[in-house]
Amino acid sequence: MSENAGDDRFWGERTAKMLSRIREVAPQVHVLTSTVAQPFSANLLLAVGAQPSMSAAEGEIDAFAERTDALVANLGMLDATRRDALERALPILEARRCPWVLDPVKVERSPERRAFAQHLISAQPAVIRANADEMAVLDVPAGIVRAVTGAVDRIEADGRRLEIEGGHPLMARVTAMGCAGTGLVAATLAVEADPFAATVGALLALAVAGERAAEVAPGPGSFPAAFLDALHALSAAQLVAGARIR
Amino acid sequence: MSENAGDDRFWGERTAKMLSRIREVAPQVHVLTSTVAQPFSANLLLAVGAQPSMSAAEGEIDAFAERTDALVANLGMLDATRRDALERALPILEARRCPWVLDPVKVERSPERRAFAQHLISAQPAVIRANADEMAVLDVPAGIVRAVTGAVDRIEADGRRLEIEGGHPLMARVTAMGCAGTGLVAATLAVEADPFAATVGALLALAVAGERAAEVAPGPGSFPAAFLDALHALSAAQLVAGARIR
Amino acid sequence: MSENAGDDRFWGERTAKMLSRIREVAPQVHVLTSTVAQPFSANLLLAVGAQPSMSAAEGEIDAFAERTDALVANLGMLDATRRDALERALPILEARRCPWVLDPVKVERSPERRAFAQHLISAQPAVIRANADEMAVLDVPAGIVRAVTGAVDRIEADGRRLEIEGGHPLMARVTAMGCAGTGLVAATLAVEADPFAATVGALLALAVAGERAAEVAPGPGSFPAAFLDALHALSAAQLVAGARIR
Repeated sequence: MSENAGDDRFWGERTAKMLSRIREVAPQVHVLTSTVAQPFSANLLLAVGAQPSMSAAEGEIDAFAERTDALVANLGMLDATRRDALERALPILEARRCPWVLDPVKVERSPERRAFAQHLISAQPAVIRANADEMAVLDVPAGIVRAVTGAVDRIEADGRRLEIEGGHPLMARVTAMGCAGTGLVAATLAVEADPFAATVGALLALAVAGERAAEVAPGPGSFPAAFLDALHALSAAQLVAGARIR
Repeated sequence: MSENAGDDRFWGERTAKMLSRIREVAPQVHVLTSTVAQPFSANLLLAVGAQPSMSAAEGEIDAFAERTDALVANLGMLDATRRDALERALPILEARRCPWVLDPVKVERSPERRAFAQHLISAQPAVIRANADEMAVLDVPAGIVRAVTGAVDRIEADGRRLEIEGGHPLMARVTAMGCAGTGLVAATLAVEADPFAATVGALLALAVAGERAAEVAPGPGSFPAAFLDALHALSAAQLVAGARIR
Repeated sequence: MSENAGDDRFWGERTAKMLSRIREVAPQVHVLTSTVAQPFSANLLLAVGAQPSMSAAEGEIDAFAERTDALVANLGMLDATRRDALERALPILEARRCPWVLDPVKVERSPERRAFAQHLISAQPAVIRANADEMAVLDVPAGIVRAVTGAVDRIEADGRRLEIEGGHPLMARVTAMGCAGTGLVAATLAVEADPFAATVGALLALAVAGERAAEVAPGPGSFPAAFLDALHALSAAQLVAGARIR
């Protein structure tokens, strides 16, 4: 246990409550993401007890936006269909005060994708989850939780700030791990009113599950299954024991 | 073994024959489904010895419809390309008397999707596989097998009716399990002339494989691999022992 | 060890160097492939330490083609978006002398797909990886490595010729195994200047990893994870011991 044993216990227990609330409520999480990231993202949401949906089709996006409990906007492999789906969905979410998370994949690599991300940010995501390079090129107004993930995750919002150590290098050797993690942030947002706490809960669960999976998986091939098994089984005791909050 | 030990033996052995016929014939099964469901659906068909194909591209769908041995029409994440592919493929299948299965995913959630499903039904699928909520909103004419899947699967057609108990709750925690199961119905249709028997065989194989997988998989992450391993290895003895037919 | 123990040692050690160079350099490999093949292809590239990208979006393909270290052109489920992406990307690669591999999936089944493949070949791929039926219908000019994969892999180029025995029948029971293997050829091309050697290295690694995976995986469900674990862990000693070069 880290030196912040009090924080570890507090967040471990609070996260366990969020996870059990997800299993209870089975929130619908609509995920607009790349085709490569869809299967693992759907399986992660199912593993924690949420209900994923993923349609970006023009005739269907309104209906899903009107009913979903949270949404993921992932900009990987960004095509016109997904752009249009986001343009239609976000005003509907805003009107419903439904939370959504932006995952601005590789936004630092293209001025166009960056401009689009910045445009989306004006529709006020609850959380932006990104790596340090991605976050660095974005202008994020107050009121939005910034989660910079990496070897250490840093969560910041309006003067609150917290770091989570954990996870495992194999997490970077599995496709869609980032997008699926953003999906878990969306699921916690659906059951936890404080977006800062929801983000901490999701990232803590991912970090602890990643460490537990690495204990049983011999390599990147078997890691995703072990990771979902660990996430599915995560208990308050495991979360408290595994938390390294600063 | 259930009280209907005679039925269990009959269907267990008949199903084993269908599965060995699939391995022998290696039927081509064309699957028009959502991108999220493609990898697992393809892997399930490969695991039983069928040959999946999945193109919905305008320039290619005719060629696949002219050659396939069975087809899956899955309405999840329904986009214009897949709609168009279905409109082109179904008349070709009808002319060839090639069987196809409708999987009307979440058809109860949108009047449009329901209308499209009803329109497809007029092209006479051999089987409709759906959950109870989906089947409830569809008008299904005689001559089509209705398979309502859930904790208990109910298969009905023209006065014949049969129930299968089995499977495992983890099957609902894996994306594409429904679509992949519909794929197995298509594969059995390709080798078994009686669509009612083909449907029973496919759903029995899924139920028994699900139970066997749950014995070895500790959670939803490792379940899909264990499920495909079980399905691949399914023997007549396992099917007879595992069958709970009513 | 085969009778060509000298070749086995030479290629085993040379392949181990390519794999360690991939881990060092982390080359970017852009994969234009079908949606069904994306997740496993991305995971294979991540497992060996490469960086996959997969966008075919009109607004993004130029940027990826300008930066990638190698590219895969897979013709499975060929739609207009991917065709257009290939038309835009290949001249950019040619100008940059960036290597790419053609995977002409099922090109023997449709005159249109064959014509498109032949058109792409005029843009000079470094390697064509195909099965025997596919390769048979293509006209391949000198200077391009031809890799015909199957129970035995045959690699030919400008008078050089070599065969690799190995792999396992379960490799044909897993979707995207072919495309993912082509991805590994692209990754070796990014770190090895001789395309013939790069192709031999990639196919040898796949063959040895396939055999090792089959030792631990009970069926096609668990095979992909075992295969990526084996590929990730492949050592020079394993490659030398497992090589059967003729």
